[in-house]
Amino acid sequence: MDEFERIDEIRKRLAAACPDTPGVTLGIGDDAAILAPSTRAQVLSVDSAVQGVHFRLDFGAPERLGRRAVMAAASDLAAMGARPRCALSSLVLPDSLDDELLLRLTDGFARAAKELGMPIVGGNLTSGRALGITTTVVGELDAAPLTRAGARPGDVVYVSGELGACGLGLYILLHPELGATPGAQRFVDAWLDVTAAIDTGLRLVGHASACVDVSDGFAQDLGHLLAASRVGALIELSRLPRAQGFEALATELGAHAFDLMLAGGEDYVLLFTADPDDAVAAQLGTRVGEISSSPGLLLIDPKGDRRSPPAGFRHGA
Amino acid sequence: MDEFERIDEIRKRLAAACPDTPGVTLGIGDDAAILAPSTRAQVLSVDSAVQGVHFRLDFGAPERLGRRAVMAAASDLAAMGARPRCALSSLVLPDSLDDELLLRLTDGFARAAKELGMPIVGGNLTSGRALGITTTVVGELDAAPLTRAGARPGDVVYVSGELGACGLGLYILLHPELGATPGAQRFVDAWLDVTAAIDTGLRLVGHASACVDVSDGFAQDLGHLLAASRVGALIELSRLPRAQGFEALATELGAHAFDLMLAGGEDYVLLFTADPDDAVAAQLGTRVGEISSSPGLLLIDPKGDRRSPPAGFRHGA
Repeated sequence: MDEFERIDEIRKRLAAACPDTPGVTLGIGDDAAILAPSTRAQVLSVDSAVQGVHFRLDFGAPERLGRRAVMAAASDLAAMGARPRCALSSLVLPDSLDDELLLRLTDGFARAAKELGMPIVGGNLTSGRALGITTTVVGELDAAPLTRAGARPGDVVYVSGELGACGLGLYILLHPELGATPGAQRFVDAWLDVTAAIDTGLRLVGHASACVDVSDGFAQDLGHLLAASRVGALIELSRLPRAQGFEALATELGAHAFDLMLAGGEDYVLLFTADPDDAVAAQLGTRVGEISSSPGLLLIDPKGDRRSPPAGFRHGA
Repeated sequence: MDEFERIDEIRKRLAAACPDTPGVTLGIGDDAAILAPSTRAQVLSVDSAVQGVHFRLDFGAPERLGRRAVMAAASDLAAMGARPRCALSSLVLPDSLDDELLLRLTDGFARAAKELGMPIVGGNLTSGRALGITTTVVGELDAAPLTRAGARPGDVVYVSGELGACGLGLYILLHPELGATPGAQRFVDAWLDVTAAIDTGLRLVGHASACVDVSDGFAQDLGHLLAASRVGALIELSRLPRAQGFEALATELGAHAFDLMLAGGEDYVLLFTADPDDAVAAQLGTRVGEISSSPGLLLIDPKGDRRSPPAGFRHGA
């Protein structure tokens, strides 16, 4: 297929995923897309997934890799408490990338778009050495946003899902000889099949005092929240939620369970704070610690000893 | 600088370029940017510039390359008759790219942002093999958009500026031994210093029946407009606007003047159609031909002979 045939085929597949797109006046096919006016504030974010840096094509089916790239971008909407509205997809395609692989990736984008009710309304194709997927997401706010600033001393720190599973999955993908270990596949699946926590984000609006998604790693992302809120935190590592069998498998495979939980990243769960009396927040997360007025991050390990934050955490950043 | 210091410094420079940003509730620094509600339709587009494909770092000062990447993306807003509102910048940075180069590129983004009144409100940094600059632009419409569909038989075809100059500039950049030829530098400058035709686009609203920007090349972009409008066109090559001395220099340097004008691309002028009686449209462009009801593109060369469209043009696309 030439470039225009590719664009036509991509457009068809993306349009089929979200056939009913109220609010989209003009989709793929002109110089730009047009969104109908909205009375709501609009939320914008962009995220890139680069072959050889964020993923390799042998990690899994192209549909799953494509879906994952869009979900990772949409996670920023979840962190803001925003409702997905639409997305744009800009692709860098190596000459070696064949039509089938491109269309299977596209089917993955379409799958994420359908799951999120977020039509892909525009994009760009260009050539380059490594496959690159840059996704711009547009959301809108029903009410006030969740931001990183707003955590207050005495607030509880919550996590909306398991930590470390995606980090362990990626570790296994990078060491393919480990893939056959019993129990390994579910962590690989966790990495491949992440889902943006949109519903959790929407339900947290009016309840969480601050929120961030765990993309870089729990400690680093918490550091961003603490810096923006100008507070500190005390975190009890024994409370960090993890999948059953996670620590045993990590140890068996030669990985460090707490490093994966604290710095593995890409879990795309929400890390948020709330007043201790907020029952909705308590229902949506696992309590892992508390906000303090003194700056910095204090980690208490399961033996009750203090542990330093992993590399990447910035005190007072 | 580490990643966070880089982000802090980039944020500072971008914020300084557009200190007064009404309508932007939250800029760079949280999980996403927030735009205040608007009563206007929003226009979205994305464009990528990849090192080794769209530019080389030895083509010119990083400030000019950075400005150019943002201007190229904003050209799609011009083609829609939209007013720039904000942009997002997603960068792929090779490990070899030093801080100075990154900050000079950033100064170029900031320069374009300032010229266009289009604050850069978010972005993303990631590593990769080749420098990549992906710019998402958001605009808004005061009235109905300009689209590619809408040209009618009998409409005049206009071009808002010179064709081929950027193509010749790129040809010279790719053959550095030609750069010292008298008269060459102005074409290199034309390529390096393109400006999105925002004002022209805004003034064409209500006057042009269809519009596209010349990014891929005059013939190819006209083909998109004809296909979307389901019409054909007759173009007189002798009427295509070009810089003084353009043909002579192109010939001297071994390039084909008409190929550069028809297929060179990247001129980022507007190609539009309008009723022959529309005086505003006639004032904003040079008349180069006429829309016909029979599909296809008929090019008449200066001798009065028919000429085939260059590769890339799709009949009835």
